[in-house]
Amino acid sequence: MSKLTNREIHLVSRPDGLPVPANFAVVENKVNTEGEGVLIRNLYMSVDPAMRPALSNGQTRLDAVMGGGAIGRVMESTVEAYPVGSYVLHRCGFREYYRSDGKDLSLIKPQGESLTTHLHILGGTGLTAYGGLLVTGELKDGENVFVSAAAGAVGSVACQIAKIKNCRVAGSCGSDDKVAYLKNELGVDYAFNYKTSSISKELHIGLPDGIDVYFENVGGAHLDAACGQMRPLGRIPVCGMISAYNNKGARSEGVTTLSNMIYNRVTMKGFVVYEFNHMKDQFLKDMRTWMSEGRMKYSETIMEGIVEAPNALIGLLQGQNTGKMLVRLSDDV
Amino acid sequence: MSKLTNREIHLVSRPDGLPVPANFAVVENKVNTEGEGVLIRNLYMSVDPAMRPALSNGQTRLDAVMGGGAIGRVMESTVEAYPVGSYVLHRCGFREYYRSDGKDLSLIKPQGESLTTHLHILGGTGLTAYGGLLVTGELKDGENVFVSAAAGAVGSVACQIAKIKNCRVAGSCGSDDKVAYLKNELGVDYAFNYKTSSISKELHIGLPDGIDVYFENVGGAHLDAACGQMRPLGRIPVCGMISAYNNKGARSEGVTTLSNMIYNRVTMKGFVVYEFNHMKDQFLKDMRTWMSEGRMKYSETIMEGIVEAPNALIGLLQGQNTGKMLVRLSDDV
Repeated sequence: MSKLTNREIHLVSRPDGLPVPANFAVVENKVNTEGEGVLIRNLYMSVDPAMRPALSNGQTRLDAVMGGGAIGRVMESTVEAYPVGSYVLHRCGFREYYRSDGKDLSLIKPQGESLTTHLHILGGTGLTAYGGLLVTGELKDGENVFVSAAAGAVGSVACQIAKIKNCRVAGSCGSDDKVAYLKNELGVDYAFNYKTSSISKELHIGLPDGIDVYFENVGGAHLDAACGQMRPLGRIPVCGMISAYNNKGARSEGVTTLSNMIYNRVTMKGFVVYEFNHMKDQFLKDMRTWMSEGRMKYSETIMEGIVEAPNALIGLLQGQNTGKMLVRLSDDV
Repeated sequence: MSKLTNREIHLVSRPDGLPVPANFAVVENKVNTEGEGVLIRNLYMSVDPAMRPALSNGQTRLDAVMGGGAIGRVMESTVEAYPVGSYVLHRCGFREYYRSDGKDLSLIKPQGESLTTHLHILGGTGLTAYGGLLVTGELKDGENVFVSAAAGAVGSVACQIAKIKNCRVAGSCGSDDKVAYLKNELGVDYAFNYKTSSISKELHIGLPDGIDVYFENVGGAHLDAACGQMRPLGRIPVCGMISAYNNKGARSEGVTTLSNMIYNRVTMKGFVVYEFNHMKDQFLKDMRTWMSEGRMKYSETIMEGIVEAPNALIGLLQGQNTGKMLVRLSDDV
């Protein structure tokens, strides 16, 4: 039986603060090319903020291959649903080859769009923004919306959905280049660099009537500023709090403005993307329509090769990406 | 036309921090005994934490009589619905006499219970706990419930409703006497004095499986401890944040544990009692049943005379009350 050399990423120590390369190891092993099941050559993997808390809370095991969204091409298969040459989506990234029994795969059939979009705007990232804003956030046409980490993968979709729903949108990001991207590419009404300004003052300028929906990706100082400016019956769908993830216990900077939730009857609600799985068909239909109309754009930051996967995660946590952070795992794409 | 001497409380300067007696003045004026409408002798007035933010945010006007829940007896009346001798509830406390056109009054007909209960467990205070816990908090039988300011007017009702719903209940309060009251009188499962203990440690002991519903009255350090221990799909109905009210902008101590809301999909929601007005009949029916069964008890802290009204409010903000803080405005009750 012939064998292929596979490289994969293991977590070898839990990070204290921002992860460092030494927390990870590249491990080589062999994968059987023959046998029952589906042999997959991973092509791209997704890098997500939610991977960081998993490194500390025990969800990601030590000295074992890490997991995460990935797209691969089927090389060998005894499972009829996944013939050789087809593309599959699964949760076993951070490795070059993956052998599956087929139960954890789903088939991808691009309709003209790039394969990678299924790891972001047409995948879980997009569904997170779609469900978080429209379901958890109960977005209504014409409202005032603030999106933090607005140039990130989820944030940039949230901004564009809000614009499509005729909302006034303010977005925060961490560089002047991203400010320009938000304004010029995504059509955000007001964008600011939170590193060089007062979030609270910027929000007063960008959304002078206050905030109806704050799509929360950052936490800490962002939430402190936004919560104090929420309008009556405002909603805060909590997608993530990336500013907290490198801290012990994922503790954020202190939020001091929560009393505004009382008289303005504000709702803040944490959500996870699988709540919206039942909406996937409508989501894909809407997103493809918006893409074809030029109203849903995306950006990708792609790092090359499995060896770069830890750096991609570290870079994401430092805001080095615009749009989706991906790792290309094969030259053959 | 004969006239009566009325004394009333004016706000004369906005407090910086805890209010002081000099922020208030007792003002004397005359009230006509005859004429159209309803002349009311106020008997009791309610003192509520929500009065404090109103002193700073402009809702309470300077150099004008303050407002708040009160019960009075009708002395003169040209309005058929409110005959002489009947008892009425209205929002014009902080004065001894009140002349109304009748439109802002509601009739009280005690069914054996004391008149004052209509200012607390059978009034807005009780409805706040009832709606906040059962509607906003979506309380289910047998859940783990934490109530802060548990010996206060709203908190003590919330604790008892949760016990009636077969929940395990932990309550925080600010003195050892109140701890004893919660355990021995109200049947709370676990009570602690937050001033002499770690809220987080006490919650781990009192509710070792975590918190399903945190009925929030205090904010700041209480919320910081509780939010970190919320269980999946937990709810935090936000009734008040008394720890913040004396601070500029009602800012609380920093809350750093909000990231727990994400993966545990926790909902935090501010509410105001008028949301539950449509439930008043069911509320009164339930409360009277529970009172008759000995499962709904109350405590009152009563100060004597209109001149003491500012001190009652200041004392409330310092936690001097057990149960409802009231001011008796007439000797004739």
